[in-house]
Amino acid sequence: MLGSGVHAGLYPLEFGQASTNRAGRTFRQELERIGYLGDKPLGEPMTAYYELHIEQGPVLEREGLPIGVVTGVQGVVMVESALTGFNAHAGRAPMAGRRDAFRGAAEITYRIMEATAQFGPDARCTVCRAEVSPGAPSVVPDHVFFTIDIRHPDGKTLAAFYEQLKVICGEVVKRHDLGFSMREDWTFDPLSFDPACVGNVRETVEALGYPYRDIISGAGHDAVNVSRLTPTAMIFIPCRDGLSHNEYEHAEKEHAIMGCNVLLGTVIRHSTKAAKKNGGE
Amino acid sequence: MLGSGVHAGLYPLEFGQASTNRAGRTFRQELERIGYLGDKPLGEPMTAYYELHIEQGPVLEREGLPIGVVTGVQGVVMVESALTGFNAHAGRAPMAGRRDAFRGAAEITYRIMEATAQFGPDARCTVCRAEVSPGAPSVVPDHVFFTIDIRHPDGKTLAAFYEQLKVICGEVVKRHDLGFSMREDWTFDPLSFDPACVGNVRETVEALGYPYRDIISGAGHDAVNVSRLTPTAMIFIPCRDGLSHNEYEHAEKEHAIMGCNVLLGTVIRHSTKAAKKNGGE
Repeated sequence: MLGSGVHAGLYPLEFGQASTNRAGRTFRQELERIGYLGDKPLGEPMTAYYELHIEQGPVLEREGLPIGVVTGVQGVVMVESALTGFNAHAGRAPMAGRRDAFRGAAEITYRIMEATAQFGPDARCTVCRAEVSPGAPSVVPDHVFFTIDIRHPDGKTLAAFYEQLKVICGEVVKRHDLGFSMREDWTFDPLSFDPACVGNVRETVEALGYPYRDIISGAGHDAVNVSRLTPTAMIFIPCRDGLSHNEYEHAEKEHAIMGCNVLLGTVIRHSTKAAKKNGGE
Repeated sequence: MLGSGVHAGLYPLEFGQASTNRAGRTFRQELERIGYLGDKPLGEPMTAYYELHIEQGPVLEREGLPIGVVTGVQGVVMVESALTGFNAHAGRAPMAGRRDAFRGAAEITYRIMEATAQFGPDARCTVCRAEVSPGAPSVVPDHVFFTIDIRHPDGKTLAAFYEQLKVICGEVVKRHDLGFSMREDWTFDPLSFDPACVGNVRETVEALGYPYRDIISGAGHDAVNVSRLTPTAMIFIPCRDGLSHNEYEHAEKEHAIMGCNVLLGTVIRHSTKAAKKNGGE
């Protein structure tokens, strides 16, 4: 989402171009190398933006539906957290005086996961990464870096969920006498797509006679960034086992074709309506 | 403890010599390289074995005592565990159908840590290592490798503690529909050192007038292996902040001197007693 973020003014152009991969090469260097460094001005207005994507979840596949009309995107708070305790011997150090960073991370994870249900079935909570140091036999871990990813389609509920996470972290680090830091790595508010654009997608699916349902996206997409500038909507197709960001990600060819038909039909529908409007009809 | 384990017949000589470091070099190759490959027979009888060691814990330092008379060694069960779930998108996949391997690992860790107190103040529980896969943003972890290390000086209590761990693992993997494997990596039963040897240490400390306490070792030592063949005891001195297996491990020179005095005095005492006995007195 870096390119769309720069386009939409979320990040300065210089930040995007100076971003590096793990090998230390910048985005700008690589764009030059492959001949894709452009010179168009940023943030140019578009009439509309429609994005076709796999669902990245199991709902459409479970319900046997080839199309999802995406009405909006969940809000996300993803934080990078670090816990610092004290290195001790796993056999000698009494449990009472320990400052076990992994015990703290496990307790935070357990408690926020258990608390998730109270924010309803649309709430999501995932600890995607956890790195334990020193990770040596017979040594109580003195440092854990981990990420906590919470999501909800309703902004107020997401804020309450985030507050609950902070309360749990505060209680756990106090209980185990741990140092703690938390940084928001990637967050965005819940988003409703443009009603007219969503309407165009739905009308097109119905005209084509494809089974569908309305659906909320749980993931971030370029559409989230572009929607700051331009009327936007999205179309989902199923993916096998809900897998994505994974070598086994797979969409059926027939679903991809149906998705493309919906995208094409929607763009034609949008253009036709715009032409009629401009023509004064 | 590999050398003492081979000496005591716990592992075959071939196993010890074929063990490799991370660079793939064998123990035998390295012994040859540095000129230390011996030819003495294994398991030769010794009169007695006394080992001087830092405590690797905070007790002596906290209590301001320079010497610990080690009466025995805690039992250890260290298991390598693997949880296998299913890779899913952190935003899309509903909480209900998830098979989150890290959620499982966190729940097992939280529950066994909370259960530890019921086995008394001598019980120890540590998760020293945890590796989370794939460890990618927005992906529910589908695999966690982690080690669980539980210890107790009483064999029956340690067995009950281990049973409790297995019950918790069984409940958690069922609840989150996870695959599970557990392998005992390093275990030994609690051990009481030879009463006559422990008595020699205690008499020596008292004769020298050093403050001391009896103490149970929480860590494995060569003495544990050697005690299978030979009457054995150990002497502890304090170490700063209980740190060991760590670059900041540190013992005060005065404590090291006192420890050496106790070791020397104990060996002389042991030899004198043996000579008197052989002399028929």
